[in-house]
Amino acid sequence: MGALSRRQESLVRALRQRHGRRESELCLCDGLRSGSEIISLRPDLLEMVILRSGVSLDLNLPIEPVILSPEEFDRVAACVHSQGILVIARRPALKALDEPVKDPFVLVLDRVGDPGNFGTIIRTARAVGLHDLWLTKGCVDPFSDKVLRSASGAQFALSIRVADNLESLAKSLHANGIHTVFRTLPAGGENVFCVKDLFERSAIVLGCEATGVAEMDHSRSLNIPMPGSAESLNVAQAATVILFEYVRRMTAV
Amino acid sequence: MGALSRRQESLVRALRQRHGRRESELCLCDGLRSGSEIISLRPDLLEMVILRSGVSLDLNLPIEPVILSPEEFDRVAACVHSQGILVIARRPALKALDEPVKDPFVLVLDRVGDPGNFGTIIRTARAVGLHDLWLTKGCVDPFSDKVLRSASGAQFALSIRVADNLESLAKSLHANGIHTVFRTLPAGGENVFCVKDLFERSAIVLGCEATGVAEMDHSRSLNIPMPGSAESLNVAQAATVILFEYVRRMTAV
Repeated sequence: MGALSRRQESLVRALRQRHGRRESELCLCDGLRSGSEIISLRPDLLEMVILRSGVSLDLNLPIEPVILSPEEFDRVAACVHSQGILVIARRPALKALDEPVKDPFVLVLDRVGDPGNFGTIIRTARAVGLHDLWLTKGCVDPFSDKVLRSASGAQFALSIRVADNLESLAKSLHANGIHTVFRTLPAGGENVFCVKDLFERSAIVLGCEATGVAEMDHSRSLNIPMPGSAESLNVAQAATVILFEYVRRMTAV
Repeated sequence: MGALSRRQESLVRALRQRHGRRESELCLCDGLRSGSEIISLRPDLLEMVILRSGVSLDLNLPIEPVILSPEEFDRVAACVHSQGILVIARRPALKALDEPVKDPFVLVLDRVGDPGNFGTIIRTARAVGLHDLWLTKGCVDPFSDKVLRSASGAQFALSIRVADNLESLAKSLHANGIHTVFRTLPAGGENVFCVKDLFERSAIVLGCEATGVAEMDHSRSLNIPMPGSAESLNVAQAATVILFEYVRRMTAV
């Protein structure tokens, strides 16, 4: 049975905080599904894999895991429903804003603060086949433990670009030849199901749950029609509607 | 400044547990958005509204609230990010399984266990204009505090029917003249964007995150195409894709 050094144990604790992650350039992932994704997608980034003794997981580990007694593991995991695995990995490098865009359209998240929504959008972006995700700095850290869990580790399959704000992001879009920008609004704007050029070298911006997307010059407004009486859609649901409208246009005859 | 009696305080605590809710037929909602929805949708069901002193909320309350000191409120709320309001309401009556179906199609949730996903689906079902939601008993309690919060209180706008399992639910569907049943599967099946009769007096069954939808006789398999490499979609995202495909067919020219 192994044991963590005091330094390793305080590293695990530090990685649950944004500050600790930034200092170390590492991230912490608890959960079998997201952990296995990281292991299979980016084995080169693995720093440490910690397992609870007695848990049998079908994993092909490129590094020797640290196996802890159940008591020791549960103390370190600090997670009620832990599945007996903790993965520590180096954060993948961010992509430069001016690198060429290969995706047919660009998905932009502006100050999305809820880790569950944010992770769900990352997972869904991967499911529809996007390669890049664009963020503004006000978003929650995409490599926080909560976002890793709700994204099932899809952060390690996508490239992430981060801009200071929507204004500087718009400049990078223009430099990349992307001039059509759609902002989603709860009311008014063009119907997402009817806009013909929605996915043709465009950017689609989804915003902060509380205040919506910031203003942007020359952008078009996009609306998801809601026949029912809800005030607005959850931002992850809005992203899903838009991303799968893209899939529908690709796959439906 | 008011105070809760010992009995009231233990009621609040009990309502965070499934058992406590069942015994009292009440439910507890913390959160401004979901609380206000309950207050405006079903004032007749309100039992108690507890406010934190000093919090100013623009609410039209049909009953006299109990106002607690901040310290007292926070102790009772037991919620880190409380917005200063707790609502206790009687649970709306369930709808009988054999009541006539007015919605164009029926949404069925089978053993959905995650409160966040479950609540999001309820909120989205309301957003697209459905009136009913069908569940099997294995689902998490739709009136738990977590589900109320993630659904923004939409439970109080929909009617909920609960069947013991999919088999007995299928019988009620047949008795209602609904003979076409679709089960969503992660792979295989008819493309959701191409099925012509998807929303014509049909039932669409979404299942448990871990094991998927249970087997059903004479059902058709429904597939959401995923060009990317994700293993499967989150059940709330799958529901959103299907529900907004309905909206698209209604609203797009």
